[in-house]
Formats: sequence, C-alpha cells, structure tokens
Amino acid sequence: VAAACAALAERHRETLMAARTLLQQAVPTTFGLKAAGWLVAVLDARSRLVDVRDRGLAAQLGGAAGTLAGFGERGPEVAALFAAELGLAQPTLPWHSHRARIAELAGAVDVAAGVASKIALDVALLAQTEVGEAAEAAGGRSSTMPQKRNPVGSALTLACARLAHANAALLGGGLDHEHERSPGAWQAEWPALTASLAYGGGALASLRGALAGLEVDAARMRENLDATSGAIMTERLSFLLVPVLGRERTKAALDSALAAAAAAPGVQLRDALLAGPELGLSEDELDAALDPAGYTGAADALVERALRRHAAELGGGR
Amino acid sequence: VAAACAALAERHRETLMAARTLLQQAVPTTFGLKAAGWLVAVLDARSRLVDVRDRGLAAQLGGAAGTLAGFGERGPEVAALFAAELGLAQPTLPWHSHRARIAELAGAVDVAAGVASKIALDVALLAQTEVGEAAEAAGGRSSTMPQKRNPVGSALTLACARLAHANAALLGGGLDHEHERSPGAWQAEWPALTASLAYGGGALASLRGALAGLEVDAARMRENLDATSGAIMTERLSFLLVPVLGRERTKAALDSALAAAAAAPGVQLRDALLAGPELGLSEDELDAALDPAGYTGAADALVERALRRHAAELGGGR
Amino acid sequence: VAAACAALAERHRETLMAARTLLQQAVPTTFGLKAAGWLVAVLDARSRLVDVRDRGLAAQLGGAAGTLAGFGERGPEVAALFAAELGLAQPTLPWHSHRARIAELAGAVDVAAGVASKIALDVALLAQTEVGEAAEAAGGRSSTMPQKRNPVGSALTLACARLAHANAALLGGGLDHEHERSPGAWQAEWPALTASLAYGGGALASLRGALAGLEVDAARMRENLDATSGAIMTERLSFLLVPVLGRERTKAALDSALAAAAAAPGVQLRDALLAGPELGLSEDELDAALDPAGYTGAADALVERALRRHAAELGGGR
Amino acid sequence: VAAACAALAERHRETLMAARTLLQQAVPTTFGLKAAGWLVAVLDARSRLVDVRDRGLAAQLGGAAGTLAGFGERGPEVAALFAAELGLAQPTLPWHSHRARIAELAGAVDVAAGVASKIALDVALLAQTEVGEAAEAAGGRSSTMPQKRNPVGSALTLACARLAHANAALLGGGLDHEHERSPGAWQAEWPALTASLAYGGGALASLRGALAGLEVDAARMRENLDATSGAIMTERLSFLLVPVLGRERTKAALDSALAAAAAAPGVQLRDALLAGPELGLSEDELDAALDPAGYTGAADALVERALRRHAAELGGGR
Repeated sequence: VAAACAALAERHRETLMAARTLLQQAVPTTFGLKAAGWLVAVLDARSRLVDVRDRGLAAQLGGAAGTLAGFGERGPEVAALFAAELGLAQPTLPWHSHRARIAELAGAVDVAAGVASKIALDVALLAQTEVGEAAEAAGGRSSTMPQKRNPVGSALTLACARLAHANAALLGGGLDHEHERSPGAWQAEWPALTASLAYGGGALASLRGALAGLEVDAARMRENLDATSGAIMTERLSFLLVPVLGRERTKAALDSALAAAAAAPGVQLRDALLAGPELGLSEDELDAALDPAGYTGAADALVERALRRHAAELGGGR
Repeated sequence: VAAACAALAERHRETLMAARTLLQQAVPTTFGLKAAGWLVAVLDARSRLVDVRDRGLAAQLGGAAGTLAGFGERGPEVAALFAAELGLAQPTLPWHSHRARIAELAGAVDVAAGVASKIALDVALLAQTEVGEAAEAAGGRSSTMPQKRNPVGSALTLACARLAHANAALLGGGLDHEHERSPGAWQAEWPALTASLAYGGGALASLRGALAGLEVDAARMRENLDATSGAIMTERLSFLLVPVLGRERTKAALDSALAAAAAAPGVQLRDALLAGPELGLSEDELDAALDPAGYTGAADALVERALRRHAAELGGGR
Repeated sequence: VAAACAALAERHRETLMAARTLLQQAVPTTFGLKAAGWLVAVLDARSRLVDVRDRGLAAQLGGAAGTLAGFGERGPEVAALFAAELGLAQPTLPWHSHRARIAELAGAVDVAAGVASKIALDVALLAQTEVGEAAEAAGGRSSTMPQKRNPVGSALTLACARLAHANAALLGGGLDHEHERSPGAWQAEWPALTASLAYGGGALASLRGALAGLEVDAARMRENLDATSGAIMTERLSFLLVPVLGRERTKAALDSALAAAAAAPGVQLRDALLAGPELGLSEDELDAALDPAGYTGAADALVERALRRHAAELGGGR
Repeated sequence: VAAACAALAERHRETLMAARTLLQQAVPTTFGLKAAGWLVAVLDARSRLVDVRDRGLAAQLGGAAGTLAGFGERGPEVAALFAAELGLAQPTLPWHSHRARIAELAGAVDVAAGVASKIALDVALLAQTEVGEAAEAAGGRSSTMPQKRNPVGSALTLACARLAHANAALLGGGLDHEHERSPGAWQAEWPALTASLAYGGGALASLRGALAGLEVDAARMRENLDATSGAIMTERLSFLLVPVLGRERTKAALDSALAAAAAAPGVQLRDALLAGPELGLSEDELDAALDPAGYTGAADALVERALRRHAAELGGGR
C-alpha cells in the first residue's frame, strides 16, 4: 500500500486538484500531496505495528497462576528458553491475566485498518460519478448497470475496517480479568483477536487492490477546480486584499463578486472582481492571484519529504 | 499507583495466598507476586503513555487543507517554529485529516485505565465479605449498613475505565475522515478526547486512593488457603505422583482422597491420602508436598525482578 | 424532523434525481422518494422511542437489595404508590441490578441518532461542490473561504450521533452487574446515560436545523442525471433488450455504446445505440426508454404511502 | 433458561442467603428472589426479541435504488407478494439504506446476551471457592487441579456476551449509509449480524447448560449469612433503633457492637449489643430482630409474582 501511495505521490506531484473541507471545495492542492498524506499515514501505522511486534509481544509461560511452580527450580530458565524458542521477548513477569499486549496489538491493527479506511473513503468519494477524479482499475461493474465503476476495493476496505474496529474495541475494553485467569474475558479474546487480524489484514489487502492501477483523471481534477469560476481562490484573495483594503471592504468585494459569478453561468470571478470597486491589483496581478498553480504552498516540498521518508524506511529506491 | 503496588509487592513477598483461576482456588501464590503483577502492568502502561507522548504527539499546522499555502513561502519554516514553540515533534506532513495520533493517545489512555480496572477488580474481589483478604482503608460505609467496607475507590476505577474505553473506542473507530476535513468525524473527537483523558485520569486517581493504605489480611489469606483441607495442593501432588504411579492411578488416588476430604468437615486431604493406597511417599514427604510455602515456584524471584524494574524506571530507591 | 422530511417529500415528489449506489449513479429516482425514505426512518425511530418510554421504563424501588424489607409489611404497596407518583409503570420486580431498561433506552436513542446521521450524511453528500443538489439554508461560510456552503448542521448531527453511539454501546455492553449492586458497572451508567440523551437530542436538533429551509436545486439534479449522456438508463435498457436479444448480445450492444458515449464529450448513449446493431426498438421507443421520468417505478405511490403514514401518526394535516 | 430460573425460584423461595452490594454482604434475601430476578430479566429480554421479530423485521425488496422500477407497473404488488412469501411484514417503503431494523435486531440479541451475562456472573461469583453457594453440575475440572469446579458454562456465556455485544455495537453505530447503497457500511453488516446471532445464541445456550442441574448449597448460604456474627442485620437494627434512640446514639451503639464482634472470633453482635447501653429491646425482641428469616421483606410475594408471569407467558404449568 505504501508503495502504491508513493508512486501516486511522485507521479502526481504537479497534478492540481481541489482540496475539500466539510466536503466543500476549499483551496487548491495537488493529488501528489493527497497521496503523500496517505503514504505518511500508512508509514506511521506500519511503524506502530513494527513497534508492537518488536516491543509489545512477549512470550507467556507461567503455569496455572504465573508462579512457574510446575517447572520446579528451573521455572525462570524454562520461561527464558521458551521465549527464545518462539523468538519472542521475555516479559518481566508471566502476563496471563494482564492483557494489555493483546489490546495493543489489536489497537495497532485497528489504527492500520482505520488509516486504510480513510484512504478508501477518499477514493470512493473521488470516484463518485459527479466527481470522477479517480476510478479503481478493477472497479466492479453491476451486471444490470454496466455504466457503473463501483469502488469495490474501497468498499471492502471500509467494511473490513469496521469489523477490525469492533473486535479491537472488545479487546481494548476487556482488560478486567479476574485474579489469575478470568471466566469469560479471556475466552472472548480468542475469536476477537483472530477476527481483528483477519479483518485488519483484509482492509489493507483490499486497499492494495483499490490503489493498484488506480486511474487518476488529472483533466477532470482541473475541470472540477475550475468549475466554480475561480471561487476556490477566495482564501488567497482575502490574504492579499485584507492588508490593502481592510477586512470589511475585502469581504464586501468578495461577497459581491462571488454572488455575481454564482448568478450567471460562465461569469468568472475574475471578471466580476474587475467589474467591481478598485482592488489595487492590476489585471495581471489578479490573474496571477487566481491561478491555482500559484497557491499550492509547500505541497511539492511536503511530497518530497514524504517520499524521502518512504525511501529511508522501506527502500523505495530514491 | 506504581509506588503503592511496589510497596505491597515488597511487604508481602512471603505472604501466602490462593491463586484463583475461573474464580476457583487453583494453586498457592504470594500476595507479593500478585502485587508485582499489578506493578509490571502499570509500568508497561506508563511506558506506553510516555512513548505516545514523546513519539506520537506532533504539532499540527497546515492551513485549510494541509498545504501551508496561507503562510506563503515560509510555510514549512512557520510549521517548524510552531512545533518548537509548543515543544512538540514536527510531523512529516500536516496531519489534520489523518487522526491516528488521536486514536493512539486515547488507546494508550484506555489501556492504562484497563490496567487499573484489572487491579481494581482484584481488590474488589479480595474485599468480598466471604474472602476478606483486603479492604480499602477509606472503604465507604453505608449509612444504614455500617458493617460494610465498600471498595469505593475500586468501584470508581471500574466505572471510569468503562467510560474511558467508550470514548477511546469512538476515537479508534473514527479515522474515516473525508478528504481534507471531515464533516462530523472531526467534531466528534473533541468531547471524546476530553472525556477519554478525564476518565482515564480518574481511573488511575481512584485506584491510587484504593491502594493507599490497602489493608491486607495475611492471616485470612492463610485461612482461605487452608479452607479446602489441602485440596489446593493437588497440582503439585499430581506432578509428584504421576511419574511414580502413572496418570490413571494418580487420578484415582487423588479423586478418592478429595472426595473423602470434601465429604466430612475436618478431614484433611493428607489423612485421606494416607488412608488410601500406597503412594510411595513417606508421611514427611507428603507433609512437605502439601505445604503451600513449598509450591510458590519462582514467586520470590519474579517479585525481585519487578521491583528492580520499578527502581530502574521510576527510581524506587532500591 | 419528520415534518421537514414530509414537506420535502411532498414538494419534490416529481423532482427527478440520480439514485446512487456505492456512490455511483445507478438509476433515476425522485428526491421526493429520498425524502420519504428519511421520513419513514424517522417515524420508525420515533415509534421505537415512544414504545421504550411507554413500555420499557418502569419505576425502580427495592431497598438495598430488592426485597423491599426496609418498608416493612407494606413494601409492595409503597412500590406501587411510588410508581404511580412518578407516572411510571410498575415492574414485575425491583430491577436495580438488571439494567436492560437502561440499555434499551440508550439503544433507542442510538438508533434515532443513527437515523439522523444517515440523513445528515445524505445532505452533506448532496451539498458537495461537485454535486450541488442541496445546501443548508444556514450553511456556515468560512471567514477566509466565503464561497463555501458548509453543511454545518449535518456535520454536527454526524458528530453527535457518534457520541450518542459510544455511550449507548457502553450501556448495552454493561449489563454484567454483580449480585444486588455492582461496584463500577452501575456508576458508569450515570454519565453515559446523560451523554447518550444529550448527544441523541443534539443529533436530532441539529438535523432539524439542517433540514429547515434546505435549499434543493432541482435543475442541478436534472443536470447531474443527464451528465452521463444517458448511461444511467442502462438498467432499463437491459431489462428491455435481454428478452429480445438475449443476455450476450444485449451486453455487447450496451458496452459498445457506453464506450462510444464515454469516449467523446457530447455523444449521447442514444446516438451511440442508434449507430450500433439493430435493437428492435424504433427511435421513439428508444427515446421513451431513455427518459428518466419513465423509470421511477413506484416512487410516487411510495411517497404517498409515507405521507399518509406521517399524517396518521403525527397529524400532518393530510 | 427461563424454565431453569423459574424452577430455582420456586424451589428456593425460602432459602435464605446474603444479598451483596458492591460485593459486600448487605442484607438477607432469598435465593428464590435472586433466581426470580434472573427469570424476570430473561422474560423481559425474550419479550423484546419477540417484539423485534414480530414488529421489527420486514421484507426488503426495492430494486437497485428502492423505486421498484425493475418490476414495472407491478412493483408494489410484487413487493407485497414477496413479503407474504417470506412471512414477513411489508414495510412502508423499501428500506435498503435505512438499517435501523438490523441494529434493533442485534440490539435485542445484545440485551438478551447481556441478561445472560449478568446471571452467569452471579453464578461464577456464587461458585467461588470461598463462597461455595452454587456449582455448575457439569463444572469442568482441570486435569491437573481436580479439586476445581470451574463454572465453564458461565465462563462461556460471559465470553459469548462480549462477542455478541461487539458485533451489535458495530451494527448500532453503522446506520450512516450513503445514499441508496453504502460502499462499506452495508457489507460490514453481513459477518457482524451473523456473529451477533451466533454469539447471542451461544450465550443463552451456555447459560442453559450452566443452570441445568445447578447445585445450590443452602447450608453454605446460611453459613455465609451467619459468618459475620449478625452484622448483616444492622440495617434492620438501625431502622428499629433510630426512632427510639435517635440517629447518633443508634450509630454509636451499632459501631461499638460491630467493633466488639469483629475484634474477637466467636463474639456475636447480639451479645456485644446486650453488653452495651440499653437499647429498649428485650432479649427476645433482639433475637427476633437479628433473625435473617424475619427480614426478607416481600421476597416471597415477589417470587410469586415472577412465577405467575412466567406461567402466564410461557405456560409454566402453574
């Protein structure tokens, strides 16, 4: 999944698109940065899983009640050999009725599945008919509705993530084990941990399928960015105009131009602004201010930073 | 809480008691080992919290959509200064819509509260009228039932842990944030994170109250250990006899002696065994085999290990 | 909320729009039917809440342990008077440690909040910049991004529903109360029930705000319906053609026409079909088959059914 | 399960035992009343399940988007016949993306499993070695610890209830389905509903096993009741003495007598009270006041009420 995200981030570092907050177009960004955000979230989740594996898991051997009494004099030695045999760390104490390790393992899997669910949700939203900026290569077609490009990998990821979470929540909330072995809390862990691992793995595996060969429509991204006649650039205009005009007059100028542009199809915010009161910007300066490509901030540098981290951690060949 | 557990572990490293599995007396242990188990669980949870604080938290500054565009050329520099000002790590990328950090923080709090709930449950069970092995010093008395020693600190810990968990589960299952800012998933985090921290802290604070001056009744522990007329030693007898008598004859001998001891009050397993078929053990050997003090395995060494770790990590003055 | 849904269903019973499955345009529907679906879900949730109030809640009075012993001979009589005083049903037995009533109340609130979250999610999705079919009248504008019409009521509903759910889940999973009063499980209920009611109410109250004066853009709905050049009608075409051409030939004809229409902007599915192999349909028949208004099935009758139920249950003046 | 509870309630309506609050002995009750409490909780849960089955479930048929368009003119008629064929109610509207029914079904199963978990927890607590008031007939013996009577049915019930709850929580929190079919939320329901039903059924089936032939030790119940030398009667003494001596003097007298009785084994509260200041009660009156059998309040009447309800609802042959 990380490799797929990195490839998308690299390939699309200059692909402009709309960033969306509360599902409304907000400001420009690049698809490269969006994919880099996915990448970093995946690297973080992976790092947490590695950490849980390397530091969190530990062998458990203690006999009926954690005293190692059944092994006679050599209890601690047996426990150490047992851990070595399994390639697991040796815990300070037998931990049969202290279940934080199980909860943390499932928690790390839950976070990884949750990270996958965020990416899958983004893909499914980008794949909407009305948005059309991405499509899963293996997108399922309905037999009776062949026009559809169902984001089936994303859907499966979202489903698996809910199931991984339900089981992780059971394990996280189930540390209340009575004395040296619980009647119930312990036995509930077995299917829950299995399900947690299975659905967590399923979430990531499905996402890999969804991202493999993801079809990204850069032209449609640009169309959507332009679809509001320049309105997506108002944040930048605000930042430029407020120091000159003050907050009140800036707001009035923008509101009136936005209303004019919204009222009639084809009217650009640019023209509505030029038809309004003097802004202290030349036409060229206004055109430059309204160019989305000029307002992606540190997107490129951030993509670079994400790709370097990916290369450093997973040898992405950079 | 760790200090209270360590003090109990130290003071009671030779205090014999019954270990209980599925709420049945199983084999002997020491209260020192039980408290050492609590201690290690608390140290583990603390270590995880420290790790989340030091490695997991990171400053978040990205502007409307994570591009830092609003800060002009100096976006990354501003973000770095912002992180330094807050004393937080600088993340690879702005992470506004990638919420694993929030989930992991709440998850670590949830685990800490869960560890507290396990200890509190043990205390409440030990404090039962019929068990009577421990009592909270500040145990609440009911106004109309002054004989009661309610484990009020433990009860509050158990209540807080359930509440911390419910809020952590919301956060752990809520990573599915749409695009660059979610309508709903994000806003739900605010009260949930606050509640998670409040109830998590409450669970531990209440537990500190419950453990402070916990009254441990070593004599009652011994009485309970002896209450089954020696039956708690059958595991050890099994391990001794099976090599000599074989599995079948051992089982028959033990079952018949256990039945005899259970049938009449006052009949000790020892006497029932001596009245049965030859076991190949002298009376002295049998008495030694039936002494709980001789069957605590590595309990003492394990307590030592836990106390050393406590001293190393928290400077417990060892 | 029900009244707002009913008004939308009535007003838009002939407003055509695209139905979306897996976030892909699937077949035509009406916004009236969509709103009628919301309405029925709200009526069902309301009916469940009324049922829980009328049948589920019952007075609880039992003394320390449910025997009513503290009231002497007149215990049952006192309990009956107590219930009457509170206007609550009298339970078969005091129920202090049997908490299903609390779980069911929170469960019904959770379902009501969940129903609200489904409606809010639909509104937020319809309000997306690229979809533009609905906007909250009081949609929040960002100070620096005045072009946005943030679905703030929907966002708050979605946030509240997550919080109502977290607390309901605690209550639903917390029936394991020890003996006659639990140390912990009971005390955890107090803030959880309060939060459940508060956030449940908040979810519905916010949704009422989101739906009040919801701006529905019927023209944009039609545009979106037409945006795929007729592809949304393929299910109907399939159903018409398969009996004549067989499954294979129908699939081939549709796939080839869909590909042609997708390849060039402006090419309608209609024309691509007419340019292909003979379908056994006249041009007029094809035009009729491709008219979304002719493929809304029972939408109108279903809206009527929902409105009648609303009038019957809540006196909607029909 | 109801039948087993009813049989226990009937058989033990005069079996005295200690009621326990916060796991402390509080006042006397009868095991009959305890079992009647279980019975009523089970009857309530059953009634809710029947209600969900009869009123909550409804056939779902709507085509791709709930318009029934694929069925032509006869959509509603087909839907009605479909419901009749399945023996399910006909819903107001197709409900494919409105999932309250699924949540309510799983919620009712969750409550039933939760009721079972409360009973199982009571059984496991009663079966503790130090309490010894009940034992499962099929209680599992450990191979190496044959003295144990593990409450294996109760443990399995408790485990299943946690698993049923985790899956019900997923379904209860998963009503946020996008438009006419959700990518993810819908697919997550399938294994969750299956698991909910399986574990819910498992919880009750295991409990039936635990209660079948439950061995109740009435003598041990009496011993435990007497183990505090009369202290369990202090609530009754308070209620008797306060009107005569006032609150302060009553408290002082009881505290001092409780301390004396606790200080030396064998000293009864009765004798400590008689050795203290005048209480205005004759020795006979005091003995009567201290008789647990005289302070079970309405226990018998309440058992009768529960049994009558059982007979009325399930034909228990009364």
